[in-house]
Amino acid sequence: MLHGPGDVVIEDRPVPQAGPGEVVVRIRSVGVCGSDTHYYDHGRIGSFVVEAPLVLGHEAAGEVAEVGPGVTRPAVGQRVSVEPGVPDMSCRQCLAGRYNLCPNMRFFATPPIDGAFAEYVVVHEAFAHPVPDSISDDAAALLEPLSVGVWACMKGHVTAGSRVLVTGAGPIGLVAVQTALAFGATEVIVSDVNPARLALARDLGATETVDARETSVADLDRPPEVLLECSGHPPAISEAIRALDRAGRAVLVGMGGDEVPLPLSVVQERELELTGTFRYANTWPTAIALVASGRVDLDRLVTGTFQLHQAEEALTAGRRDPQSVKVVIHPQTGQPTHTAS
Amino acid sequence: MLHGPGDVVIEDRPVPQAGPGEVVVRIRSVGVCGSDTHYYDHGRIGSFVVEAPLVLGHEAAGEVAEVGPGVTRPAVGQRVSVEPGVPDMSCRQCLAGRYNLCPNMRFFATPPIDGAFAEYVVVHEAFAHPVPDSISDDAAALLEPLSVGVWACMKGHVTAGSRVLVTGAGPIGLVAVQTALAFGATEVIVSDVNPARLALARDLGATETVDARETSVADLDRPPEVLLECSGHPPAISEAIRALDRAGRAVLVGMGGDEVPLPLSVVQERELELTGTFRYANTWPTAIALVASGRVDLDRLVTGTFQLHQAEEALTAGRRDPQSVKVVIHPQTGQPTHTAS
Amino acid sequence: MLHGPGDVVIEDRPVPQAGPGEVVVRIRSVGVCGSDTHYYDHGRIGSFVVEAPLVLGHEAAGEVAEVGPGVTRPAVGQRVSVEPGVPDMSCRQCLAGRYNLCPNMRFFATPPIDGAFAEYVVVHEAFAHPVPDSISDDAAALLEPLSVGVWACMKGHVTAGSRVLVTGAGPIGLVAVQTALAFGATEVIVSDVNPARLALARDLGATETVDARETSVADLDRPPEVLLECSGHPPAISEAIRALDRAGRAVLVGMGGDEVPLPLSVVQERELELTGTFRYANTWPTAIALVASGRVDLDRLVTGTFQLHQAEEALTAGRRDPQSVKVVIHPQTGQPTHTAS
Amino acid sequence: MLHGPGDVVIEDRPVPQAGPGEVVVRIRSVGVCGSDTHYYDHGRIGSFVVEAPLVLGHEAAGEVAEVGPGVTRPAVGQRVSVEPGVPDMSCRQCLAGRYNLCPNMRFFATPPIDGAFAEYVVVHEAFAHPVPDSISDDAAALLEPLSVGVWACMKGHVTAGSRVLVTGAGPIGLVAVQTALAFGATEVIVSDVNPARLALARDLGATETVDARETSVADLDRPPEVLLECSGHPPAISEAIRALDRAGRAVLVGMGGDEVPLPLSVVQERELELTGTFRYANTWPTAIALVASGRVDLDRLVTGTFQLHQAEEALTAGRRDPQSVKVVIHPQTGQPTHTAS
Repeated sequence: MLHGPGDVVIEDRPVPQAGPGEVVVRIRSVGVCGSDTHYYDHGRIGSFVVEAPLVLGHEAAGEVAEVGPGVTRPAVGQRVSVEPGVPDMSCRQCLAGRYNLCPNMRFFATPPIDGAFAEYVVVHEAFAHPVPDSISDDAAALLEPLSVGVWACMKGHVTAGSRVLVTGAGPIGLVAVQTALAFGATEVIVSDVNPARLALARDLGATETVDARETSVADLDRPPEVLLECSGHPPAISEAIRALDRAGRAVLVGMGGDEVPLPLSVVQERELELTGTFRYANTWPTAIALVASGRVDLDRLVTGTFQLHQAEEALTAGRRDPQSVKVVIHPQTGQPTHTAS
Repeated sequence: MLHGPGDVVIEDRPVPQAGPGEVVVRIRSVGVCGSDTHYYDHGRIGSFVVEAPLVLGHEAAGEVAEVGPGVTRPAVGQRVSVEPGVPDMSCRQCLAGRYNLCPNMRFFATPPIDGAFAEYVVVHEAFAHPVPDSISDDAAALLEPLSVGVWACMKGHVTAGSRVLVTGAGPIGLVAVQTALAFGATEVIVSDVNPARLALARDLGATETVDARETSVADLDRPPEVLLECSGHPPAISEAIRALDRAGRAVLVGMGGDEVPLPLSVVQERELELTGTFRYANTWPTAIALVASGRVDLDRLVTGTFQLHQAEEALTAGRRDPQSVKVVIHPQTGQPTHTAS
Repeated sequence: MLHGPGDVVIEDRPVPQAGPGEVVVRIRSVGVCGSDTHYYDHGRIGSFVVEAPLVLGHEAAGEVAEVGPGVTRPAVGQRVSVEPGVPDMSCRQCLAGRYNLCPNMRFFATPPIDGAFAEYVVVHEAFAHPVPDSISDDAAALLEPLSVGVWACMKGHVTAGSRVLVTGAGPIGLVAVQTALAFGATEVIVSDVNPARLALARDLGATETVDARETSVADLDRPPEVLLECSGHPPAISEAIRALDRAGRAVLVGMGGDEVPLPLSVVQERELELTGTFRYANTWPTAIALVASGRVDLDRLVTGTFQLHQAEEALTAGRRDPQSVKVVIHPQTGQPTHTAS
Repeated sequence: MLHGPGDVVIEDRPVPQAGPGEVVVRIRSVGVCGSDTHYYDHGRIGSFVVEAPLVLGHEAAGEVAEVGPGVTRPAVGQRVSVEPGVPDMSCRQCLAGRYNLCPNMRFFATPPIDGAFAEYVVVHEAFAHPVPDSISDDAAALLEPLSVGVWACMKGHVTAGSRVLVTGAGPIGLVAVQTALAFGATEVIVSDVNPARLALARDLGATETVDARETSVADLDRPPEVLLECSGHPPAISEAIRALDRAGRAVLVGMGGDEVPLPLSVVQERELELTGTFRYANTWPTAIALVASGRVDLDRLVTGTFQLHQAEEALTAGRRDPQSVKVVIHPQTGQPTHTAS
């Protein structure tokens, strides 16, 4: 539990109970996201401030330990990936299928909602997605960041033959590379300043990499049609938009502050379309299918595994090791296991 | 003919001949656009520089005076509205139906292509759109700016029940108001700093007006779903984007320089979609239907009529009279009329 | 209550109670739909069989009489229009915004779910849509059939300047005429065999009518772009599809049995798109805006008003009077009024 | 040249000349399509009747032998794939990007337009698509049937994770399997009555095959989302539409006569969308990218190679050998070669 910047403690809490339509999930793997580290470092992200102790973690998978009244789909023992947001499903956004924009969303590890660095979590059955045995626990947890990439490709209209530019080769950029390929892109160009990550991008199928310290994406041989912006770096955003082909689409995934410079005349003369993404909606079925069919390899991204009592170490792995990409916590190892009521 | 900033002269030139598939149009009315005035004042717009004498004017209508070889549609005498751009119709953009993005577009009154402040122009028959008698010569000329509004509404996905914000009530903003209503919008809010134009906007059907000197569009009771940005004023653009509802769309029509500040986090959290417009494609049939059916009134926008020899007066009418909205030139009046060979 | 074909009785039942998130609505007006009459005549529609006594009626409006726990939006006394289906809001269709396709939908007056020929009904607050005073009780009830027309226009991509063919001028065809115009259509051609209904269609704004006993829609001067098929008459369906322009869209609204002949080669050569509609989703906000703004006139369609004890007379009004278009029942008149607990 | 049913002769003709914007292509490979065989057998397809001697063949590739005036893109010697239709590029369909629906289309091997069973053909440079060396001559020719599959997937909105049913495993069905996978489909079920073709479908990546003589697609474990109908067999069409999931899409590619039975109530209750395809538009860039990147293997489909003087043998190969999938003709082999002027 995060009590404040840099202040994480393990606490014993009662195993949660499943309400109507809900299931209790025994967590087997939970990924560490940059937002978890940001809360750990600063105690806040923008207007979201940690005012009471908060359980971090929102990339989780496990098995159903208990089902609440009226649950019809997952049975006890079913392995599931957790979609970590609970929309109200009755506002206008939810009714229109845009539940990620629900103004009443309760999202894991976003104050004051607890997350999944825990042995058990409760979630509505509709958001506990069954996964086949071919998907590992870690991959099942990482279906959450994969969903960010899937959503970006949906928003970017990536399709067979698309020429895609991915700016930023962090965990999200690297899943974006894989999802763009899975959506049929035949050119996937990746730019970053970290050669190790560019090498990994190539291993994952990127057709070209650009070291942003040396080369500008403005100098590409042929302008890309789709930009999946995963760096959140304002000058990179602007430059990448300028690199797009006529009628291109830019999907702004990386968070980069309140304002960035928009190249208005370029957007107009080429009739570019831009959009930002906020989490995802209806992506788990696609994400599961992509991993189960072997089109996306999430295990490949895992560079470290920790126990729950090592949470602090997990949260800071990225800054200690430049080779680190994604670390996961296995809450059921290294400690006495509790049993759901 | 514009020889340089502030230097306009009337010249006698041979009546142009129609090539294969082309028609000669005897111009009856041609509107004066802000871009014409900008060339008159500055001799350039951005990278387009008037280096040789240039005929201005690209909002034109008249009657077919001659048809070239192979022309099958308009006959001599047919009243037509001129779509003032000639794409190559063989590049990838043209083949995809986005002929406005054709890199080889030859557009009227854009150096070095002559425009329509003239007695006769030549255009491909596909871009000489027949108009019914119910549409006046002036309205037929103003189908060009109406097309800008139609295109903006298409790009903005304006539909029945849409709540639309139009920023800027110049000629384009005023056609945007009318087109938004014609596309079924039931709320059309208009902001501007000119009370006379806001009053005209209300007359044309705007459901609410905002005096931007006093009130911010950020304070609207209910956020609009679509922004048709027609001011080109960078701070207004940014503020208007921030006023949009979740899943809203912003169409950036007004030209406002190379860069404007983009509210990135708002675009992301609400998953706004933004795009810019560059002229239009395939809009004339819709524009003709809207005027012929009485849904849009273009004659209402005409605040002054000039003869060809008064071109200079026409080009400067806007700055002399704040009530001026749109002036037109009638090249066939007030002078000896030439006849196509 | 319908006990079987032709067997309707008035029964006293307890006033229903609102559960969590629900409201009790005191019904002021409820329309009679062809499906109500079909159940009355035959005791079934396809596989839906009336096996236990059933309350008919699903076009209802009234005022909120009681709110259940947790209700945040409508207050007691608020006038509302009832959206008569309750989806599960947790299946994949609901999550995707297609709640009309929810396999667990509980829809009013569809066995075994009771409808709204009653003094009170209960509905989730999300489906009790507040209406402004400018919308009458009858019009508020008829937002349900209007929604069918709105949905058809959405599915048909009707927009400004569309050329639309509406086949069948019954209540749904007549709302389709009005909605097509409200979506910006500039040509709305209506075909039917009933001259009285064609005359009403013209009054409501249809630009052309075709007496299907004498003229085929295949002989139209210019092929329509969109078909809103509201007759359900198999030969008419096929003929109307053949009348469409290249790249046209056909929306099959009228129910016409299990199979109809599809003109395959025409669908291929013109790349027509066809779809059927099943109720509607997310249409009430648009329907309310269209009526409140005066773009659609629903009161005009009401040709008869009945009290609850006259339900049988209301159900058979259509067959007794060829001028009848839509009749409504006012449950609060002509009888002692009950009060919600 | 086809003089009538079963009457094919080799004739010497002058090498064609390139007009403005056109190129002469020396054909290296041209595929035999079912339509060629149909003309050979019957002398007609529907309303298209062979009244004068006709050159068959419309799946062609070769190298540029001569360029006409004004040609800017392909140079002499450039290997190209020929898109075999010449639209007028000035009608409303062409301007809208739907050039395949051009009413004035001149399409190879469709009376009275000659095709590509020839040493040389002439085509506008915009339709002579350069191909990289990694694409063989045969594969370059077969980009034409591949385009049919690409277009079907575009129309079907096939994307990452799609569950697709392909009915009919002829050449078009087999390219549809490959394109569906290239568009990201993770389930591709193929039905046919020919076990050899089903085996090939599995080799090409189909995830499941159904022997239509024994099993109905109505019995699939999980309903597919997209149907790519490539059989043209009316009962199969109807049954396959009935097999679709709610909100599914059916793309009717196979030609199957004038009318087929449409399951109306299923289309309505599930809100299925149906469309037919007519050739393709703007597909070559995608098709080239898919083959060049190794995602689609066209060489695999070639089961026979013939010389020009064996045209009759090539046209009848399919009926003589049930293992035959696609045969090609190499006009430059086995005979004296002519040289372009």
